[in-house]
Amino acid sequence: MKRIFLLLFSMTLLNVSAQTDADNVKAIFDNSLLNGMSYQWLDHLSNQIGGRLSGSLNAERAVAYTKEEFEKLGLDKVWLQPVMVPRWVRGAPEYAYIETSPGKTTSVNICALGGSVATPNGGVKANLIEVETYKDLEKLGREKIEGKIVFINRPMQANLIHTFEAYGGCSSERYSGAKEAAKYGAVGVIVRSLNLRLDDYPHTGSMSYGDLPNHLRIPSAAISTNDAELLSGMLALDNNIKFYFSQHCKKLEDVQSYNVIGEITGTEFPNEIILVGGHLDSWDLGDGSHDDGAGVVQSMDVLRLLKESGIKPKRTIRAVLFMNEENGLRGGRKYAEEAKRKGENHVFALESDSGGFTPRGFSFECNDAMLAKVQSWRDLFKPYLIHFFEKGYSGADIGPLRKNYENIVLAGLRPDSQRYFDHHHAANDTFEHVNKRELELGAATMTSLVYLIDKYGTDTISNTAELRD
Amino acid sequence: MKRIFLLLFSMTLLNVSAQTDADNVKAIFDNSLLNGMSYQWLDHLSNQIGGRLSGSLNAERAVAYTKEEFEKLGLDKVWLQPVMVPRWVRGAPEYAYIETSPGKTTSVNICALGGSVATPNGGVKANLIEVETYKDLEKLGREKIEGKIVFINRPMQANLIHTFEAYGGCSSERYSGAKEAAKYGAVGVIVRSLNLRLDDYPHTGSMSYGDLPNHLRIPSAAISTNDAELLSGMLALDNNIKFYFSQHCKKLEDVQSYNVIGEITGTEFPNEIILVGGHLDSWDLGDGSHDDGAGVVQSMDVLRLLKESGIKPKRTIRAVLFMNEENGLRGGRKYAEEAKRKGENHVFALESDSGGFTPRGFSFECNDAMLAKVQSWRDLFKPYLIHFFEKGYSGADIGPLRKNYENIVLAGLRPDSQRYFDHHHAANDTFEHVNKRELELGAATMTSLVYLIDKYGTDTISNTAELRD
Repeated sequence: MKRIFLLLFSMTLLNVSAQTDADNVKAIFDNSLLNGMSYQWLDHLSNQIGGRLSGSLNAERAVAYTKEEFEKLGLDKVWLQPVMVPRWVRGAPEYAYIETSPGKTTSVNICALGGSVATPNGGVKANLIEVETYKDLEKLGREKIEGKIVFINRPMQANLIHTFEAYGGCSSERYSGAKEAAKYGAVGVIVRSLNLRLDDYPHTGSMSYGDLPNHLRIPSAAISTNDAELLSGMLALDNNIKFYFSQHCKKLEDVQSYNVIGEITGTEFPNEIILVGGHLDSWDLGDGSHDDGAGVVQSMDVLRLLKESGIKPKRTIRAVLFMNEENGLRGGRKYAEEAKRKGENHVFALESDSGGFTPRGFSFECNDAMLAKVQSWRDLFKPYLIHFFEKGYSGADIGPLRKNYENIVLAGLRPDSQRYFDHHHAANDTFEHVNKRELELGAATMTSLVYLIDKYGTDTISNTAELRD
Repeated sequence: MKRIFLLLFSMTLLNVSAQTDADNVKAIFDNSLLNGMSYQWLDHLSNQIGGRLSGSLNAERAVAYTKEEFEKLGLDKVWLQPVMVPRWVRGAPEYAYIETSPGKTTSVNICALGGSVATPNGGVKANLIEVETYKDLEKLGREKIEGKIVFINRPMQANLIHTFEAYGGCSSERYSGAKEAAKYGAVGVIVRSLNLRLDDYPHTGSMSYGDLPNHLRIPSAAISTNDAELLSGMLALDNNIKFYFSQHCKKLEDVQSYNVIGEITGTEFPNEIILVGGHLDSWDLGDGSHDDGAGVVQSMDVLRLLKESGIKPKRTIRAVLFMNEENGLRGGRKYAEEAKRKGENHVFALESDSGGFTPRGFSFECNDAMLAKVQSWRDLFKPYLIHFFEKGYSGADIGPLRKNYENIVLAGLRPDSQRYFDHHHAANDTFEHVNKRELELGAATMTSLVYLIDKYGTDTISNTAELRD
């Protein structure tokens, strides 16, 4: 009888514990879908503030707004972490055309790449040389490049299912194209937009001249995919056509900005920090709803959803809204520096910076044992159609934490990525392209993982040596 | 030596066989993403033809166009299957307002429900009674309902992850609301649109008067979710406000239309038919891109992608574009009747009628053994992030086949459903809301399943008794 009682008792305990996780995850999802704040916050960030390039007035407004919203949540701590950020401004709108013969021109859609210099006054007009990658430039040599505009026309690979892989395959064209072309005397660089779709939006993004001296730096712009196709087609017919573009961007002095931070202090292990974050800055063309307004409001909602669902975390849960991911990563670097200086112990960090689309799961920088632990939670996520738990890249802003901690586990939210590059860094990254439910499901998915990590920890099994295998 | 040779030989065979499935699935996805036809076909169906309500000129144009496109594919057979369909027409645009006092009105967005009668000439104006479900009407009784417009305001349940469940929870309000309200002397019915989002689009859909005599039938319309909220709020302040609406829809004589059918004849078992399908008709408000232009073009592309990928199916693969799913299901019924009459043997049927969004997997009407067989193919689908293989509903058009065959397995494509009801049966079910890649991934997912079903069969393990458990 006693044995039966004990058996029943322990079964009950097991059941209670199993039920509690499923119940808590359900409470988190219900709260997010029925009274989530992500969408309202994003509406303000996107429609009342807008694009938030580092150093801009909008970026400062976003700092003030999110700090205020954190304060309304009744968190244990809210503060601003100062960080100096670069300030690049686009200036007057860009203008470009293809000239088939003097006076016969066709306008095309371009935008300056972030970090580029302006064209000389009056713009640049020159013949073109089309390449698929900047690596082709060496073979062509100065003779064929000097005085020309280099047109790098590398389409993203459409048959890759993970669109970030297709992006990774082309992003160095954008980043390094101008630096490489300048070596051979090119007068400008036009790069095909990193967009899987054919449309009229040019997509900006960061580029770098490396250590190229100022006087050798040449202007660099992205052209819409439709116009890249047009230009390539026209070049195939007549190699002598000219391209004109003018842009007025410039780099100003660095200015002070902030990472915005809020936290719920842990009840048992307040010194063990679990971080969730996204980046508050965005490019200037759209309103930065997917990149990365979504990650910002989801990270904020993680704290709120934990509280709403009656979960009192054992560890400290900290939401960090990083400044300057897009063109400097100064916020992410500063945060890691300060964490080290203060001797803080970060055990886990999760970033959402892949858009506000339906969440599919997470990728982890961790060892096999930790991955197995996470995968053992699969069934808890199954009712929410969250199925992807694999090793992989986490996020740019939390990346600098890698060097601080031997045992930290890093993770990235992985939403459906099929539409992401339709909007990424372009004028159509706007609020109406974010679906409320998809955004809220993402916030709930993040909160559920944070809940489980807090409850079951990462401490005993992480190991840097194995982490990055 | 001989033994080693045999061992190597059998290992090679195993490898070839394993590789072949993965290679073929990859070829299918590559072909769909790199040179799929779904999106082009949908462009024509949506933008050159448009909404295709049964019996309309557009529906006939869609029949002609898809037959022509099937013929271009060089299939083994292409034909039209005649079917008589109902013809309901919307007539002049609907108009509605809320009247707070004589002369003080606020316009609201409504649309007649499919199958509804018109309002009397000059429209209907009456006080309202708000209920959450038609089941509340019985409690209220004739005294409180007679002479009034019944306003059924039942929101879809936002915390259900499978949005079709939320739809199922409310769709009988739309279907049966007028029939039930008429019993208590109501003069009209206004139903909250089945939309998870708050916006201004009214969503139509079929309703029925059952066997209610003609003179008792009352007009029924859907109101946009924003206006349902507005109306409910105004009623809470003043129960005496009036509602006016006018609509001009009517039911004409049945007309002849067609199911459009194309097939690749099987090389080994030509009499075993594997069916893929969607429905060619759509509601009239939008252009029917998601519902169900997507399913139509994906089904067409299954045949094309098999050919393009060099796969010669053993069984006959037949694509059926059904007519009249939306307001009668006559095409689906006719198809099953004819199949029975001809003594055809259908072993598997797959329907795509849940929108052209990123595919997540399939739901199956099958026994446990068949489900296990399908789930054993999981790893083949994993690279494409297809993870959902569960028992569940298949599709309306293929449903009538259930009764014909003891051993048939039915399946439905399950795309991401979060955005579907934003567009379903509304004026914003249009081409620009379909993403090319998502549509193509759906076509490839369907083709891959058909390839595997054809190769490994369903014959020995299906059993009706277990099928519907």
